[in-house]
Amino acid sequence: MRILILGGDGYLGWPTALHFSVRGHEVAVVDNMLLRQMHTERGTESLTPIQSLQERVATWRQRSELDIHTFIGDLTDGEFTDHVVREFAPEAIVHYGEQPSAPYSMIDRQHAVFSQTNNVTGTLNVLFAMRDHAADCHLVKLGTMGEYGTPNIDIEEGYIEIEHRGRKDTLPFPKMPGSFYHLSKVHDSHNIHFACRTWGLRATDLNQGIVYGIETDETAGDEELITRFDYDEAFGTVLNRFCVQAVIGHPLTVYGEGGQQRGFINIRDTLQCVDLAVSNPADGGNFRVFNQFTEVFSVLELAETVRAAGAQRGIDVAVEHLPDPRVEAEHHYYNPRADRLRELGLVPRLLSDELMQSMLGIIERYQDRVIERAILPTTSWRPAEGTSGV
Amino acid sequence: MRILILGGDGYLGWPTALHFSVRGHEVAVVDNMLLRQMHTERGTESLTPIQSLQERVATWRQRSELDIHTFIGDLTDGEFTDHVVREFAPEAIVHYGEQPSAPYSMIDRQHAVFSQTNNVTGTLNVLFAMRDHAADCHLVKLGTMGEYGTPNIDIEEGYIEIEHRGRKDTLPFPKMPGSFYHLSKVHDSHNIHFACRTWGLRATDLNQGIVYGIETDETAGDEELITRFDYDEAFGTVLNRFCVQAVIGHPLTVYGEGGQQRGFINIRDTLQCVDLAVSNPADGGNFRVFNQFTEVFSVLELAETVRAAGAQRGIDVAVEHLPDPRVEAEHHYYNPRADRLRELGLVPRLLSDELMQSMLGIIERYQDRVIERAILPTTSWRPAEGTSGV
Repeated sequence: MRILILGGDGYLGWPTALHFSVRGHEVAVVDNMLLRQMHTERGTESLTPIQSLQERVATWRQRSELDIHTFIGDLTDGEFTDHVVREFAPEAIVHYGEQPSAPYSMIDRQHAVFSQTNNVTGTLNVLFAMRDHAADCHLVKLGTMGEYGTPNIDIEEGYIEIEHRGRKDTLPFPKMPGSFYHLSKVHDSHNIHFACRTWGLRATDLNQGIVYGIETDETAGDEELITRFDYDEAFGTVLNRFCVQAVIGHPLTVYGEGGQQRGFINIRDTLQCVDLAVSNPADGGNFRVFNQFTEVFSVLELAETVRAAGAQRGIDVAVEHLPDPRVEAEHHYYNPRADRLRELGLVPRLLSDELMQSMLGIIERYQDRVIERAILPTTSWRPAEGTSGV
Repeated sequence: MRILILGGDGYLGWPTALHFSVRGHEVAVVDNMLLRQMHTERGTESLTPIQSLQERVATWRQRSELDIHTFIGDLTDGEFTDHVVREFAPEAIVHYGEQPSAPYSMIDRQHAVFSQTNNVTGTLNVLFAMRDHAADCHLVKLGTMGEYGTPNIDIEEGYIEIEHRGRKDTLPFPKMPGSFYHLSKVHDSHNIHFACRTWGLRATDLNQGIVYGIETDETAGDEELITRFDYDEAFGTVLNRFCVQAVIGHPLTVYGEGGQQRGFINIRDTLQCVDLAVSNPADGGNFRVFNQFTEVFSVLELAETVRAAGAQRGIDVAVEHLPDPRVEAEHHYYNPRADRLRELGLVPRLLSDELMQSMLGIIERYQDRVIERAILPTTSWRPAEGTSGV
C-alpha cells in the first residue's frame, strides 16, 4: 500500500514510517521540522540523540535497502500539501503532523493562535488535497482522549446514542477539551467529520491516550534509527517525564493531588493500532472514531509505579506534589471505552516492570543529556498566578 | 454601559450600535470592512446604498449629538485587538466580527481556510484581550442555529442532560454543522466555553436563526443611516433573497424540494435579543447559550409566503426548484427550543403580511440596484458536480 506519514520526523511518525516500510509498503513522510524548531525556541531537545530526518532515511536505506520518500514542507501551505498528495497518490495517510503540546499552546496568545491555526489549517489542506486528488484514500488522523475531558458518564468512541424527550439519535460525543491544543484537535474532528459527510471521504480518528516508551521493533538497539524522546515540561508526556526524573534523582512532579486519571498506551501499541486502522479502512463517507489506549492510571499511580521500578535499581525516588499548573479536575469519574481496536485484533502490551526497567535503562544511557531546567512547569493555565514560559 | 460592537459596519452590527447609542450607552465599533471587501471580490454589493462607516458615524452625530467611537482594524491582529479592549475598557462586547457566509466558505480551499482562521483567530484574540484587560466584561457572541445541524432529537439551548449507562451529566449539545463557516462557529463556541471554564470569563453565545428585514427604529426612513441588505448567493439570507427575487420578477430559487426547516428572526428582534443578553449578563465563569429565533419555517413555506405577499402587490411570483447546491437533508425532524430569551422578556415580532409589504416596498425603491447575475448559486458543496464560484 502507498502510505503517507504526516509528521514523519516525530516521536511516533518516524517509528510508524519504519513499521510500514519494513512490512513492504511504499512509504513517504512529510515534515517541516516544526517540533525541532519548537524545541530550539524553548531551549530543550530530545533525550535521545536523534539524527536529522534526512540522515535517518539514508541510514534506513543502508540497513534495509528500502526507500522512504521525504517531502520537506509545511502542511499549512496548501499548494505544497496538494503537490504531495497528487505526487505520491497515497492509499492511506497517517496524520501526526500537528503541534502536539498542550502546555505550548497555553504559553500566551501567540502560541494559542499558532497551535490552532497550524493544526486546523494543515488538516483542512489535507482534506482538500484528498478530495481533489485522492478521494478514495483513507485518512488515519491522530486525535486525543483529551478531546473528551472528564465527563461524569462513560466515554464512548466518538459517538453516543442519545434518547431525549421520546426520540433518539446517534450524535458526536460532546467534547470538553482542556487546552488550546486539545481544542485544535476537537476542531479537526469536526472538520474531518464534515468532509466525510459532505464529500464522501473516509477517515478514522484515533483518540489516543498518553503514549510512553522509547523503542519499537525497528528502532531497538540502533542508535542511528532511534526516535526522539521528550521529557520536558512542554513536550514530555507524564510517564516519560517521570522516568527521566527518577533516573536523574529529581522528585517526580505530580501536578496537584495526582488523582487525574488518563488512558495510556505503549508506543509499540500505537504502531499496532495505526496498522489495524490502515489495514481495515473506514468505508467511504464514514468518519470512524476509535479510542486508542490500553490502560487507565491516575497520575499518582504512575508515580508509585516509577518509584517502585526505581527502587529495584537502587534509586530512591521522591514524589513532589506541585500546585497544578493546569485547570483540570484532580478527582473525577473516568470510564472511557476502547473496544473497537481490540475487536480489530489489538493485543495490548500492558505496562510491565520489564518495560519500566528497559525504559529506565535506556534513559540512564543518555542521562548526561538531560536539561534539568526544562522539567518544572512554567506555563500556567491561570496566567495571573503563574509565570509566563516565554 | 460601555459597549464594544465588533463588526459594527455590518448588517446587524450597525443597527446594534445605533440601538445602544440612542439608549444612553457609550458605544464603540470595530470593523476592518471585510464584508465590503468580500463583496468587491465577488462583484456584488448591498441593495441599499450604504454610506461608509465613517460617514454614517458622522451622520449619527449630526442627528443625535451622540458619538460612536470607531476602531478600524482587523481582529486577527492580536496587538490591535488588545489595544482596542485596553483603550475602550468595555463592559460588554457584542461580537459580530466574523466572515458570515456559508457559501463563501465553500468556494474552495483558500476560502475555507480563510473563513476558519479569520473567525477562530479573531475570537481567540478577543478572549485573550478580555482575559488580560477586561476580565469582568461580558462577551455576547453571535453564533448560529446552523451549528446544531438537524439532529433527530429536540435541540436544546447549548447543553443537554445525558443519561447514559446509569450515570448523568449535562454536556455541550453535539454539533453537526453544515459548512466550513458553520464549523468556524462551532470552533469558536468550544474556545469560548474553555476560556470561561479556565479563566472565569463570562459569555453568552447567541445561536441565531436566519435574520430577515431591513429597518430598525433608528434607521427607518433615513437613507443616510440605513444598514446594508444582501440578496446575493453568498451573503444574502433566504427570505431577504426571495423578496428581492419577487420584486425583480426572478423566480424564487428554492434549493431542492425546500423541505429544509430553519429558525427565523426579524432584525428588530435581533436587537431586542442582544439587548436582553447585554442587560442580563452571564455570571463569571459561565458560558451561557441562547437559541435566538422566533419562528420555524420550511424554505418552501417561505417561498409561498413571499408569493402571497407579491400577489397582493400585483406581482406574479414563480417558484423554481434548483438542484440543492448544499449537502443537507431536504426533509428532517426539527424542533429547536428557544425559551431562555423569552424568559428574559423577548416579545417576538412574528413574520407578518405588514412586514412583508414594508420589505417589498423598500426593495422596490432600490430595485434598479439589483445585480441579477449574483442571485443564482454557483458554489456547490459537491465540487465535482458544481462550478467554482471564483
